[in-house]
Amino acid sequence: MEQITMHPIGIICSPYKEGTDIPIQGTFKSDAEAWIELKDKYAGGLKDLDKFSHAIILYYFHKSQREETEGRPFLEQNKHGIFAIRSPHRPNHIGFSIVKIKKIEANRIYFTEVDVLDQTPVLDIKPYVKYFDSRDNVKSGWLDKHFKDGNIPDETILR
Amino acid sequence: MEQITMHPIGIICSPYKEGTDIPIQGTFKSDAEAWIELKDKYAGGLKDLDKFSHAIILYYFHKSQREETEGRPFLEQNKHGIFAIRSPHRPNHIGFSIVKIKKIEANRIYFTEVDVLDQTPVLDIKPYVKYFDSRDNVKSGWLDKHFKDGNIPDETILR
Repeated sequence: MEQITMHPIGIICSPYKEGTDIPIQGTFKSDAEAWIELKDKYAGGLKDLDKFSHAIILYYFHKSQREETEGRPFLEQNKHGIFAIRSPHRPNHIGFSIVKIKKIEANRIYFTEVDVLDQTPVLDIKPYVKYFDSRDNVKSGWLDKHFKDGNIPDETILR
Repeated sequence: MEQITMHPIGIICSPYKEGTDIPIQGTFKSDAEAWIELKDKYAGGLKDLDKFSHAIILYYFHKSQREETEGRPFLEQNKHGIFAIRSPHRPNHIGFSIVKIKKIEANRIYFTEVDVLDQTPVLDIKPYVKYFDSRDNVKSGWLDKHFKDGNIPDETILR
């Protein structure tokens, strides 16, 4: 299998029109609101998602024009392998965010804890399940030093 | 943007040759081992991932031949919207797992906590970052009743 074809299932409508507006991760700017506008034919797929507090969204980094093997993250100047950072300039350009569900109406999911550009194409939505998705005894590599002693870094520069 | 083309970055080699062998989630059968064999050109992307205890892997459900709007999960007979379950029979057929990294050697990542079929094409690897990816105050919808009082369900029937 050398090629896989995908189709957007909908679009994210967010307050972030430019990459430089975006927080490092949505959870650190929790008041920002957004919604996903699903194509009508997928609206039935949202049944029972409203009983979850959080969802995983997978989307396409449509503004990235390049693919890197290494890159610099928002938080520091050091280069790391692309699979050790969350950069958009990655093979296949798939983005991943966990968002907090506010409400679901017809084909729209309203959510907070957003870190995604406006008009981003959505590839999938999955329920966030604490029994699988929250892990204990986690080491977070190069990020641990930035979050030491409960620190929340506030740099949001997009390179 | 109506069509997006992706390419596998590698292949998962796992002990699970058939869907019926697979645990509900890898975290519940933690001794099973597997590895990702990345294409050589992506090996540099693994730099510094070995300092993380866990990784997120995104892959393609290559055995799924259908796309549903609703489905029945492993754990119960009730139907739910496809975006409220983890079924492979979903739009774009993207799978998501969190795995525990054991070691990284050249273009191979060895890991445990596996729930993926052998020969599954890999689309992306991301570091699991506790500061973004572990959430508190989570409601897990229809799953909560199955995990009540610390219960771990053991049904692994694939429909």
